[in-house]
Parts: sequence; C-alpha cells; structure tokens
Amino acid sequence: MGPHPAVAAIRLAVRRVLHDILNDQTSRAPAGRTAERLPSPLVLVACSGGADSMALASALAFEAPKLGVRAGGVTVDHGLQPGSDLRAEEVVVRLRELRLDPVESVAVTVGREGGPEAAARDARYAALDAAAERHGATAILLGHTRDDQAETVLLGLARGSGIRSLSGMAAVSGAGGRYRRPFLHLDRQTARKACMVQSLPVWDDPHNADPAYTRSRLRHEGLPALEKALGKGVVEALARTAQLSRDDADALDTWARQAETSVRDAAGLLECAKLYALPPAVRRRILRRAAIEAGAPAGALFARHIEEVDRLITGWRGQGAINLPGRVVAQRQGGRLVIRQG
Amino acid sequence: MGPHPAVAAIRLAVRRVLHDILNDQTSRAPAGRTAERLPSPLVLVACSGGADSMALASALAFEAPKLGVRAGGVTVDHGLQPGSDLRAEEVVVRLRELRLDPVESVAVTVGREGGPEAAARDARYAALDAAAERHGATAILLGHTRDDQAETVLLGLARGSGIRSLSGMAAVSGAGGRYRRPFLHLDRQTARKACMVQSLPVWDDPHNADPAYTRSRLRHEGLPALEKALGKGVVEALARTAQLSRDDADALDTWARQAETSVRDAAGLLECAKLYALPPAVRRRILRRAAIEAGAPAGALFARHIEEVDRLITGWRGQGAINLPGRVVAQRQGGRLVIRQG
Repeated sequence: MGPHPAVAAIRLAVRRVLHDILNDQTSRAPAGRTAERLPSPLVLVACSGGADSMALASALAFEAPKLGVRAGGVTVDHGLQPGSDLRAEEVVVRLRELRLDPVESVAVTVGREGGPEAAARDARYAALDAAAERHGATAILLGHTRDDQAETVLLGLARGSGIRSLSGMAAVSGAGGRYRRPFLHLDRQTARKACMVQSLPVWDDPHNADPAYTRSRLRHEGLPALEKALGKGVVEALARTAQLSRDDADALDTWARQAETSVRDAAGLLECAKLYALPPAVRRRILRRAAIEAGAPAGALFARHIEEVDRLITGWRGQGAINLPGRVVAQRQGGRLVIRQG
Repeated sequence: MGPHPAVAAIRLAVRRVLHDILNDQTSRAPAGRTAERLPSPLVLVACSGGADSMALASALAFEAPKLGVRAGGVTVDHGLQPGSDLRAEEVVVRLRELRLDPVESVAVTVGREGGPEAAARDARYAALDAAAERHGATAILLGHTRDDQAETVLLGLARGSGIRSLSGMAAVSGAGGRYRRPFLHLDRQTARKACMVQSLPVWDDPHNADPAYTRSRLRHEGLPALEKALGKGVVEALARTAQLSRDDADALDTWARQAETSVRDAAGLLECAKLYALPPAVRRRILRRAAIEAGAPAGALFARHIEEVDRLITGWRGQGAINLPGRVVAQRQGGRLVIRQG
C-alpha cells in the first residue's frame, strides 16, 4: 500500500524541486565533471514548526537520501513572543527526529521598518541567507502554499500598483535561485493532512490568527468572504493570476530594457518624441526605471508619480518640474526629458 | 454659491467626456469643415433609473446644451420582473422632466446564453446599439462607477485567466468608441449624493441586492469583507489595477502581433525554435491567437489549454496531438507547430 494521497502529494512536490536543484547544479558544473563526481548538495528546509513547513521537512527527509542529497533544517526565533526560544528548540528536536542534519535554531532581532510583517520577513530572510552561507547549502526550501500565494496576490492587489505586485511569490527566488517553494501549487489543507496522517505534531502560530495582522484578517475573513461570493475556485484563480502576471511583467520589463536604449539621444537623454511613440505600458516602465536610476526609492515611487511624469510626454502644455520621492526631479527641456536628483 | 460638490463632480466628469466626443468628431471631420459647421451631435444616456445613471442623466442634461450637444436618453426594459414595463415608462417620464430629447424605452428579450447576467448584458447592449443607429447618436453614456469597476476586476480575478480579464471596463469602448463611461473614476456614493441633493428620485433594482447574482454577493459581502481586511483604499486600488492591466495587456497584444510574423516559415507554419526564443508571455499569446484563428472559441479556451500547447514547445518529449475546444488540434510536426480544426 502506498502512502496517503496527501503524503504522496507533498513528496512528489519536493522530489520535483530536488530534481530541478540537481539539474541546475549539473548545468553549472565545470565541463567534464559528471553529476556523480559533484559533491553531494545540501538542501535546508526553513521550518517554523507549523503544518506547512513541518510537512515540507518530512517530505525532504524522505526524498533527499534517495537522490543523494543531504537534508538539513533551520528554524528562526523571531523573539516576538515570550517563550519563542523554547519553541524554536522544540522545532529543532522535531527536525532532528526526522533525521535532518545539520539542524539549527537562529535567533534574530526584528526591527520596525515597513511594519511588523515586513520587518519580521526581512530579519528571517537575512538569517536564512546567513545559514545557507554558513552551511554551504545549495538551496533553502520554503513551505508557502497556494493559499499563501492567493493571499499575497490580494495584498498586492490592495497596493494597486500594477501587475508586478500581483505576481505573488516566485517558485524560485533569491541569489542564484537559492529559495525554492515546492508547495506553491499545493493547498494548505494537503500539508495539514500530511502532518496528521504522519502523526507529526504541528504548532499554530498565534500571529496567524491575530486580526492585528493584515494577512491574518485576509486569511480568516477576506478570502473566505470572497470565496463565498465568487465560488471555491478563487484561491486557484489567484494563484494562476500570480503566474500569468509574473510572466507578463517579466516580458514587459524585457521590452522596456530593450526600448530604453533606442529612446536615448547621443548624450544619453530621453527623447520625448520617441517615448511618445511607445505603448504607454512600455513608456511608463522606462520612466520608472529612469526615476529609480536617478535615486528615487522604488518603494516610495507610486503609479501616480509615474503618471504625472508621463504627462510631460503625452499631455505637454508647458508644465513645470515634477518632484518625485528621493529629491528626484523630472522636467522637460527642449524635447528631452531630464530626470535627476535635485 | 456653486453647486454641491457631488453635483459639481458628476458635471465635471460629463463635461470632460463631452469635450472628448467633440474633439473626436472634429478630428474625424473632412478637412476644411470646422467644428462650428458640423451638425450638432446627439449624445444618449443609458438610464436604468438607478442612482448612477440618473445622476449621469442629470449631468448630461445640464452640460450638453452649453456645448451645443443634443442630449437624449434610452432605458431598457429587460422584462425580467413583473411591472418592469411600467418602471421603464416611469424612467422615460423622469428623463423627459430633465428635458432630454429624444427619450425612449426599449423592450428586450433576455436569452440564457452565458448565464442570466451575461444574457441581460448582451440584450441590453444590442438594444443600445440599435437605438444609437436609429437616432444617429454619436455616443452613449453609461453610468458605471469606480465601484462597478472594482467589482468587475474581482470577477475577472475569479476567472484566473490573466491580466486582460483584470482590465475591467474601458472608459471608451464599442464600435467607433460609441460607449463612454464618464463615472469610471467616481465613486457610487458621489452619484447617490448628487441625486439626493438634486431631489432626483432613484430606483433601487432588487437584482442589485439579490444574493443569487454573483455581482450582488460581491458588492454586499465580498468587497466589504475585503475592505475590512485590507483597508478602505481597496476599491481605488482595484480600479487602478484595471487601468494598468489594460495598458499592459494592450502592449503585450501588440508585441505578440508583431512577433507572430517573424516566427512563421514561408508556408505560414509556426516554427518551434523561434517560438521557444520568445518570452513565455508573448509566446502564449501567439499560441492563443493561432488557436482562435483555427476555430477555437475564445471563451472556451483557458490558460491550461494554452499551457499544454506551450509544452509542445518548451517541454517536447514526443507527446501526441493536443485537443482544444472547437475540435481544434495542436501538434508538433518536424519542428513546426500545426494548429488546425480536425
């Protein structure tokens, strides 16, 4: 008798990603070295002790040895709740019970920049990056599910800043494709079920149910209400939107990069007439890139800023300089668009 | 003392659109004919008697004469509720009271195709098109607000079929740009307020509150829950997403049309190697266009169909023909992709 369908699903998802990691390693290896001669790669799982990442850890522990991959685990102690250090130690014990090695707990200090969720995330990824370097890990697996992806798309939608913010989390991200998300097409329920049938104890982070957090409100109120109105397929539709938006945003970025060289004059200034001839979507991306290059912080540069700069091209009636975040100024001078720090 | 801010807002929105209509008319006029010599254009308002379209009718009645534009109105009797004919007559009376002329009520028969909402919409637009032709109208104004736009984006999101379905309703649409939506950046509350302060009686369509309709569930439950989770700016963010997605989708469609000619061989067949070199977003649009050209109905062609065809290019391992809706078959033959009706 094979494993429970939920366990089979999580293992298949991890197996596929491990194959990808091995293929990438082979293709990057110096010519003449076959896969057999390469050192056995180390793959770490980032584990909070919650159902998603415990399921991921269990599947990694099962699949890695069969492919000659070493499997380890890291848990991050955010220090945001009393006793979080003890909880982290408990996760370490559980990961060791799964025979992962190395296993470690890393304590971080969460700042305040960008709000509590963003600050915790920044601290977590910095710690995971450092752990990967320390252990020489090839990849770190993250337990984000399709449900997390749907929530991320809705969070991006609430920013209203275009399709890049609708593209959610990538299956592969980070320096050199370090981070991998094997469960991005799997639902949370499957991960939970896989833990249950494998008798893996899981921990429910009280933050996940705390209505002070936007994501938690979205998970427990927003998304269920949306499902009630639009039908059960909403989570899947949101996840598919993420993938399609990502591909579209990538293609348009490519186009904008290519077009940019053709709209600059010999002195490197942007020519308004040539910008005017481009599709608005491409032109605005070029303007955004130019503003960031001039020193405007990407996170503070909103669609309305770019629209205002765009009107120097499409609605020219002699208007003055436009002030952008980061003391960047955009103005039209003799048929050229000049964007620089003031 | 000027008008109430809500009244000022609806009038400004209509005035802008009337200017656009007049500008378009001038630019299309035969050379040598100045705007003054052109016949006075007729603009119709499509009015259900609800707050949005009553506000629109009142603003049109106020602004049109000042610009030398004739203003009329049409109300469509969908025949879906008992007494709908009497209601339509009541709307006619109200439009006449606003001194619109011509004013008429048009009865339609709503079919069943695509569900009750789509069928009613199809019947309505057919009747409006016919009314525009009959009266020689230059444009028809529609009362869709920013809130309607936000709902439309969420309905598109639920389909999960990409950024084109996120682009909502266009400010200008239909044959020759016949349909105009002056209130697309105005919220429903402003329209309602404008009716109130002008003592315009409005009718609340019971369909709008009927939970049997997806849009109604979205309006009364889905969107409020999303606002509660994500904050009050959600409607505006969704409307902005619509505009950005529309521009992006337009640009990518342009790219795909241009790229398509370069990936066909002398016989007009799609070359797999050249398709492979394109960004996925562009390649999939070419594949979709090719499938539709071969006879696949656009509405039945989903992202998963195109993904499967795409794997003939990106994941070729000798797989057989792919069946698409409309008896269209896609297969790879000797480095060419052949898509045709079987």
